[in-house]
Amino acid sequence: MTARAAVIMAAGHGTRMKSRTPKVLHKVGGRTLLDRIIDTVQAAGCDRIHVVVGLIPEVRALVEKRLGPQAVVVQDPPMGTGHAVLCAKDALADFDGDVLIVNADPPLLTAQDLEPLFTLRRGGAALALLGFEPVDPLLYGRVLRGADGHVMRIVEPSEASEQVRQVKLCNAGMYLAGREDLFRWLSRLTNDNPKNEYFLTGIVAEAVKEEKLVRAHIAPETAVMGADTPMQLSQAEAEFQKRRRAHFLAEGVAMTAPETVFFAWDTEIAAGATVEPYVVFAPGVKVETAAVIRAFSHLEGCVVREGALIGPYARLRPGADIGEEAHIGNFVEVKKVTVGKGAKANHLAYLGDGTVGAGANIGAGTIFCNYDGFFKYDTHVGDGAFIGSNSSLVAPVRIGAGAYTGSGSVITEDVSDDALALGRGRQAEKEGWAAKFRKKMAARKAGKSK
Amino acid sequence: MTARAAVIMAAGHGTRMKSRTPKVLHKVGGRTLLDRIIDTVQAAGCDRIHVVVGLIPEVRALVEKRLGPQAVVVQDPPMGTGHAVLCAKDALADFDGDVLIVNADPPLLTAQDLEPLFTLRRGGAALALLGFEPVDPLLYGRVLRGADGHVMRIVEPSEASEQVRQVKLCNAGMYLAGREDLFRWLSRLTNDNPKNEYFLTGIVAEAVKEEKLVRAHIAPETAVMGADTPMQLSQAEAEFQKRRRAHFLAEGVAMTAPETVFFAWDTEIAAGATVEPYVVFAPGVKVETAAVIRAFSHLEGCVVREGALIGPYARLRPGADIGEEAHIGNFVEVKKVTVGKGAKANHLAYLGDGTVGAGANIGAGTIFCNYDGFFKYDTHVGDGAFIGSNSSLVAPVRIGAGAYTGSGSVITEDVSDDALALGRGRQAEKEGWAAKFRKKMAARKAGKSK
Amino acid sequence: MTARAAVIMAAGHGTRMKSRTPKVLHKVGGRTLLDRIIDTVQAAGCDRIHVVVGLIPEVRALVEKRLGPQAVVVQDPPMGTGHAVLCAKDALADFDGDVLIVNADPPLLTAQDLEPLFTLRRGGAALALLGFEPVDPLLYGRVLRGADGHVMRIVEPSEASEQVRQVKLCNAGMYLAGREDLFRWLSRLTNDNPKNEYFLTGIVAEAVKEEKLVRAHIAPETAVMGADTPMQLSQAEAEFQKRRRAHFLAEGVAMTAPETVFFAWDTEIAAGATVEPYVVFAPGVKVETAAVIRAFSHLEGCVVREGALIGPYARLRPGADIGEEAHIGNFVEVKKVTVGKGAKANHLAYLGDGTVGAGANIGAGTIFCNYDGFFKYDTHVGDGAFIGSNSSLVAPVRIGAGAYTGSGSVITEDVSDDALALGRGRQAEKEGWAAKFRKKMAARKAGKSK
Repeated sequence: MTARAAVIMAAGHGTRMKSRTPKVLHKVGGRTLLDRIIDTVQAAGCDRIHVVVGLIPEVRALVEKRLGPQAVVVQDPPMGTGHAVLCAKDALADFDGDVLIVNADPPLLTAQDLEPLFTLRRGGAALALLGFEPVDPLLYGRVLRGADGHVMRIVEPSEASEQVRQVKLCNAGMYLAGREDLFRWLSRLTNDNPKNEYFLTGIVAEAVKEEKLVRAHIAPETAVMGADTPMQLSQAEAEFQKRRRAHFLAEGVAMTAPETVFFAWDTEIAAGATVEPYVVFAPGVKVETAAVIRAFSHLEGCVVREGALIGPYARLRPGADIGEEAHIGNFVEVKKVTVGKGAKANHLAYLGDGTVGAGANIGAGTIFCNYDGFFKYDTHVGDGAFIGSNSSLVAPVRIGAGAYTGSGSVITEDVSDDALALGRGRQAEKEGWAAKFRKKMAARKAGKSK
Repeated sequence: MTARAAVIMAAGHGTRMKSRTPKVLHKVGGRTLLDRIIDTVQAAGCDRIHVVVGLIPEVRALVEKRLGPQAVVVQDPPMGTGHAVLCAKDALADFDGDVLIVNADPPLLTAQDLEPLFTLRRGGAALALLGFEPVDPLLYGRVLRGADGHVMRIVEPSEASEQVRQVKLCNAGMYLAGREDLFRWLSRLTNDNPKNEYFLTGIVAEAVKEEKLVRAHIAPETAVMGADTPMQLSQAEAEFQKRRRAHFLAEGVAMTAPETVFFAWDTEIAAGATVEPYVVFAPGVKVETAAVIRAFSHLEGCVVREGALIGPYARLRPGADIGEEAHIGNFVEVKKVTVGKGAKANHLAYLGDGTVGAGANIGAGTIFCNYDGFFKYDTHVGDGAFIGSNSSLVAPVRIGAGAYTGSGSVITEDVSDDALALGRGRQAEKEGWAAKFRKKMAARKAGKSK
Repeated sequence: MTARAAVIMAAGHGTRMKSRTPKVLHKVGGRTLLDRIIDTVQAAGCDRIHVVVGLIPEVRALVEKRLGPQAVVVQDPPMGTGHAVLCAKDALADFDGDVLIVNADPPLLTAQDLEPLFTLRRGGAALALLGFEPVDPLLYGRVLRGADGHVMRIVEPSEASEQVRQVKLCNAGMYLAGREDLFRWLSRLTNDNPKNEYFLTGIVAEAVKEEKLVRAHIAPETAVMGADTPMQLSQAEAEFQKRRRAHFLAEGVAMTAPETVFFAWDTEIAAGATVEPYVVFAPGVKVETAAVIRAFSHLEGCVVREGALIGPYARLRPGADIGEEAHIGNFVEVKKVTVGKGAKANHLAYLGDGTVGAGANIGAGTIFCNYDGFFKYDTHVGDGAFIGSNSSLVAPVRIGAGAYTGSGSVITEDVSDDALALGRGRQAEKEGWAAKFRKKMAARKAGKSK
């Protein structure tokens, strides 16, 4: 098979997002557009990837972290899309194969959408490109084809005659060509246009000049559309969610109201699990079969094991590992805690850092006091332990297996197995106090309102 | 009036649900499909109901519990739909009247949808059946009618010629006939087909052979469609919710965003009540007039009385009875507690098992400690009592009328009327401690990061 | 410019709402219909506004409070729409200019929608009116125009012939005319019709009798439609939300799922802010740039400053002022508290009345105990203070800058800067207690179940 490389164009900031965050770092399905396009070209078999970036440090940092420093190609100053790709010339000097050129911002582009480019290449095209037929073609370059279907030319919208504007097929800006051809064509581009830019679209004319075969495949608009604005980004998100919902229903996940459930790009849910309305999955969640995620729950970076019951109003944060048949109930937050089989924390609790043993019961209002302003510490609750309601477990602390803590206790020292620990004041009563207090306050209130 | 019996076919597991739960125990509007169809045939006047079940114990258990053991008809092994109904022959031996045959899985079928079958019978049809005209008729048997509109035959899709496939009217699998006719026809069915099954559709041919009149009524697709997959189930749920939302708006329930409110099959809300966005009603809820259910609330098995204010983020669980003008606020859970008129629990509290008197005030963070790992106990808060914030009331315990408990107290013994109860540590101060601690920890942190 | 006055007709209760609340006090975007229409006519340049009210005290009170007592015109008893406007005659006796007549109940009417009336007046029309072409014109008066487009007459639906019913243009009930003309026409209306009412529509005939020019402008149905029922009100709300969502996306607010976010009429969100799914903005909220409002949050009457992080599941109530880069996390309620720069309250807390200093850390489960049943008191937490988890701060109380409070403490007295305050019981252990307890309870349970 011909080797495949990809050049991803990610140099612009994307000012139409009106955001401090560069466009390609905005997310769909909880994953940056840049990560998504890297996923896509990897899935399309591109083992070698270069990303053309500008001077935005966060974008460069993402590429370096994910693909290594050699993947970074800096375009500075920007002199057009053709120039952007040309910047990758040296980086690809030793590469022998086909080069795929894609924009970084179409959030829904899949490897399957790119496959026709490779097919066209195998069929003899020197240059293959993706076209699409947008509902509103006003702003796009038109792809002009001859009677035999071969691409003749791409005309920028600013240069399009009335007749050319009737052409429906628009340029999606994604190309595939052999490395040598590509950079030869690119090196011949000129910038004698009003913007003084080197347009990538010019490679079509160069290929045609050489009498090379140029072919286009018509892709769905949703596949190739970039997300330039918050509105377009939210539309891409909506389409992403629609697909994920259909996917999980087809897989056998029971959902009362799939249209109210939000998934992340990597959410895993097994057949036979149930998800109630109004559940949000942030990235990194795995849910096993027969687990039930009740309404208004928010999950991120966690595992929910077989038959566990989560929510309503449960928040599972990164590192929460909820064991089989365990229950995490309303207004309970769990972070970096492994909860054992059948354990329960049903009401208003914060479990942060540590472990909860199998069959343990965490009373309502319990707090793992895991932070001292500088460091975080672990709390370990043993198997079958019973933590009384409103307990404060001051970490680092270990509650023995089968131990009890009294309601409202502050537990600062380890508790032995099967012991009872109490740490609270003794009750005292002041008879008649409330009656006097009420009288006094009522008088004060009357005084104030005079 | 002719007596009416129903045979409900509920023998299959429904493997396309990809769930451990049998299909007919999946829910729409919080009620199992099997309960829904029983509701429907009861509403249609069927006093006698038999459910044909297979060997799934949970399905059998539901029927026994709801209708008694005599309602169960076991089909084992399954030998087709005709055989399923035939299994009910002995059970209905003493019955003199009409027998309605329905599938257990159309979640939206109503008594009104069935009424035309009874009308056709009264009009002289020996056998009446429901047809429908699905958008995609591929998988359904076609109902062939003569020029006079009488049904001639039902053709299974596998046996349909190209011409028959043009017929739009499909068989919904619901029939009405006199008991004697029905079982005579059933007894003549054969299984000489590739699947070796007795098809219920064959009763049409038998009736026609006897020159009996067979008539069909065309029902809406939504009424007769079964729910075979999670996708179909969610579509039925969506239609159910749409109808309930329209119903409650028409009744005079004010809803900012009805499309975000989920109802159960038995939800009762009076005219003049208000429901904000993102509210979920599980079964068993009754809301009186002038009550307001604020956003993000979840209610189940509870009563909200006139003028009460619930939420946002309130969770009312079974047995919560919220009195007139009472307030249950954010992150508050109430279970099996009767809350008196005008009482308030506005913030982060767990009220489980007991009573709260009229005009009482439950401070933020209060927990009813109702469980000792083995039994649950009641907490009683008297009229006009004031429970200080962050109190732990350790049940069984009784707080007298007009009594106060100090903030942060653990109350383990009864408190007299009008008394003040305190149960907490005394405050002590270590001057300068925090400054030293910060210095020490900062040093340690610096050490760690070296 | 000609002076502009408005007469708003708000006399009916609106029984079709089936609510104790009068129709014009129902809300869209969190603002009453009556306030909305007053906003609209003010934006349209009407400096003088009279509202015709009936005997409902709450409606009258709203007008008096907002516009002063002179704005109130009482219609009692009601004798038709013409009579309603005529009631304003004396109030406008000294006014020299044009009078705009509008109903109080079209929730989506904007000043822009009214502008054509003023244009028609400037163009020479003595009487200008708004028409619309409803999908279902059944209940509306038809506007009959001559060949030159001038309005000839309005025909009530009850009096419309078959031919008149073919007319698509319906009367929206909004008019503009010079004061003198208007009241002269009104004074000539008669009530010789089956209802014995003075119909406002009669002024068209009166103007035509005088050979005055009457012109109509066709407005969009959504602009002029009143909200008579809960269903219509919810439809207006849906349209309002749709417009606000598009507005904020266009402004550069990033929203994953804009269709799940609810705005109020006065919500302000800066470009570069982010709003996750399922967020509700009640009135009075301002969010600055780079702030992030996470899922399931509810905000009302508060400010979220630059870069602050709110939620998920945060409830900000009136008077919450969340400083730059501050964090308010899950199940946290903030009311009338100014939170300093970079301060954090991440888990299960109630902050009511007071201040939190810059960089302070409020531990999980902390409660500001601000109420004694009669008065509310303030809690002040100093800069950089660290409030241990599950603390109860009993107001009025002041925690010094840099001070610590121990987890689970009840703090009733002020804490010095940099000190540590503890107020909790000492831990004690009863060895083996739990084992014995379990044995005893298990026996009891076994006994009970016998």
